[in-house]
Amino acid sequence: MATLKIPSNVPSPSEDSEQLRGAFQGWGTNEGLIISILAHRNAAQRKVIRETYTQTHGEDLLKDLDKELSSDFEKVVLLWTLDPAERDAFLANQATKMLTSNNSIIVEIASTRSPLELLKAKQAYQARFKKSLEEDVAYHTSADIRKLLVPLVGIHRYEGDEVNMTLAKSEAKLLHEKIADKAYNHDDLIRIVTTRSKPQLNATLNHYNNEFGNVIDKDLDTDSDDEYLKLLRAAIKGLTYPEKYFEELLRLAINKMGTDENALTRVVTTRAEVDLQRIAEEYQRRNSVPLDRAIDKDTSGDYQKILLALMGRDE
Amino acid sequence: MATLKIPSNVPSPSEDSEQLRGAFQGWGTNEGLIISILAHRNAAQRKVIRETYTQTHGEDLLKDLDKELSSDFEKVVLLWTLDPAERDAFLANQATKMLTSNNSIIVEIASTRSPLELLKAKQAYQARFKKSLEEDVAYHTSADIRKLLVPLVGIHRYEGDEVNMTLAKSEAKLLHEKIADKAYNHDDLIRIVTTRSKPQLNATLNHYNNEFGNVIDKDLDTDSDDEYLKLLRAAIKGLTYPEKYFEELLRLAINKMGTDENALTRVVTTRAEVDLQRIAEEYQRRNSVPLDRAIDKDTSGDYQKILLALMGRDE
Repeated sequence: MATLKIPSNVPSPSEDSEQLRGAFQGWGTNEGLIISILAHRNAAQRKVIRETYTQTHGEDLLKDLDKELSSDFEKVVLLWTLDPAERDAFLANQATKMLTSNNSIIVEIASTRSPLELLKAKQAYQARFKKSLEEDVAYHTSADIRKLLVPLVGIHRYEGDEVNMTLAKSEAKLLHEKIADKAYNHDDLIRIVTTRSKPQLNATLNHYNNEFGNVIDKDLDTDSDDEYLKLLRAAIKGLTYPEKYFEELLRLAINKMGTDENALTRVVTTRAEVDLQRIAEEYQRRNSVPLDRAIDKDTSGDYQKILLALMGRDE
Repeated sequence: MATLKIPSNVPSPSEDSEQLRGAFQGWGTNEGLIISILAHRNAAQRKVIRETYTQTHGEDLLKDLDKELSSDFEKVVLLWTLDPAERDAFLANQATKMLTSNNSIIVEIASTRSPLELLKAKQAYQARFKKSLEEDVAYHTSADIRKLLVPLVGIHRYEGDEVNMTLAKSEAKLLHEKIADKAYNHDDLIRIVTTRSKPQLNATLNHYNNEFGNVIDKDLDTDSDDEYLKLLRAAIKGLTYPEKYFEELLRLAINKMGTDENALTRVVTTRAEVDLQRIAEEYQRRNSVPLDRAIDKDTSGDYQKILLALMGRDE
């Protein structure tokens, strides 16, 4: 469930667009006004506001926001205002660039989005960057990590609910054999994780747990310094239990010495319209603190205000 | 979230009561009519129907249902029709009787109900059985199991949300020491589990997990034949993660050779108005089969029909 709150009477796109224009003018920027509008419109509404803004003022709303705002607050506003597919394309692109390279963001996008969302992100990637996400991922990775990430990003999984229990049993057995042999990079293991539908993979891993007495995550937790294993475990969690994946990410981002604002911003902006409510439930269960209170405590200023607004918690 | 579905236009209690009376008359009983009424009324509505029935016909609706129905279907209808507190009192009483004794049901009621629900169940117990649940539990248990169950049932936990993190840390350490010494029945361990508020206990166990690297459930899983340890783990799961507790119970009830109808009936009737939706989500995640489909496959006849109706799945 989403946390985003949309008022019952939404102003017209041209009203919103004019209000935003007004927020940039005069002495200083009116951040509160920007939050009160953008943090309470869904993706379709934000898109029309952006189109209206361009038609009226001949400028991209995002460019104006970029000019007016700064630091963490700016990052949230820009990421949030982007269309979800464009946003994923942008995040994925940054994650393949040399200075901001981050394989775990690639894994996050490839595993926690639905197959259709991932497809749209890859289309947006091509439209914007004039190349494919797959080629960029392949180019900036090597060895086992490339072997895992390229199909993880590239393959369009079947999106149906059907589960083949016979297949789940045989592939659970196969996974267990490979893991028992420490063949964590075995072709079959990577094939199962990167190609099977999410419900089918989940059935396989449930059978693994039933039959071999451990969740696969524990059995793959043999070396916390091994980046490949870390990415493999993140992919499996993102594919089969995304709320738990994001809870963990937030836990680490918030409990760290010095909050990891990038991760916090990314989770809130990408999940507020999707499942942030369920993620917050997982967070509270695991950390004994409500997520909004944890965010409130660790952040400040306009950055804090917009995060709480996206969590549905501004008054 | 509940699964119970109530029609937008509910007939008056006297209409419902007359329809039910009609379902008992003539040749055979009209089970479909009974399901269509009772499985779509909430606790307050069922209560008024029962009162109206008694006023009009001078008989207890439950007694008439008992006369007309049989086997598993009868058990669901009777349990469901009971007021939640009376139902818990009835289940708890059966669980303390010699032939039907079942400590895990005592633990289930004491741990998964809110403090207020448990208090009401104990009041209903006294009103109906003219004795306290605590004395019956104490009488039919002994040794460590008594030491755990009597306070678990007896103590009225604080129901607020506040969490004392300093206390959580010190008690996590204490629990870890006792468990490292295999002193699973230590007074302090039982005190923490049976007296702390659920949010406080949850914070303690989260800290335990963070600090000592394992969830407490794993550390207490040392002897699967030890009934005390089984009850202790069930209590901890019921107190801190009830949806997961019920998912496990259903998994074992359904996947068994020959379904465990008692457990299935108990979970559906006691949770349909509370959190059966979330339990069903947990079930599907862990078993790769939707709960209603699993129930559909394992049951038949009117028993099947009413269970699916209580899951909100009759057409």
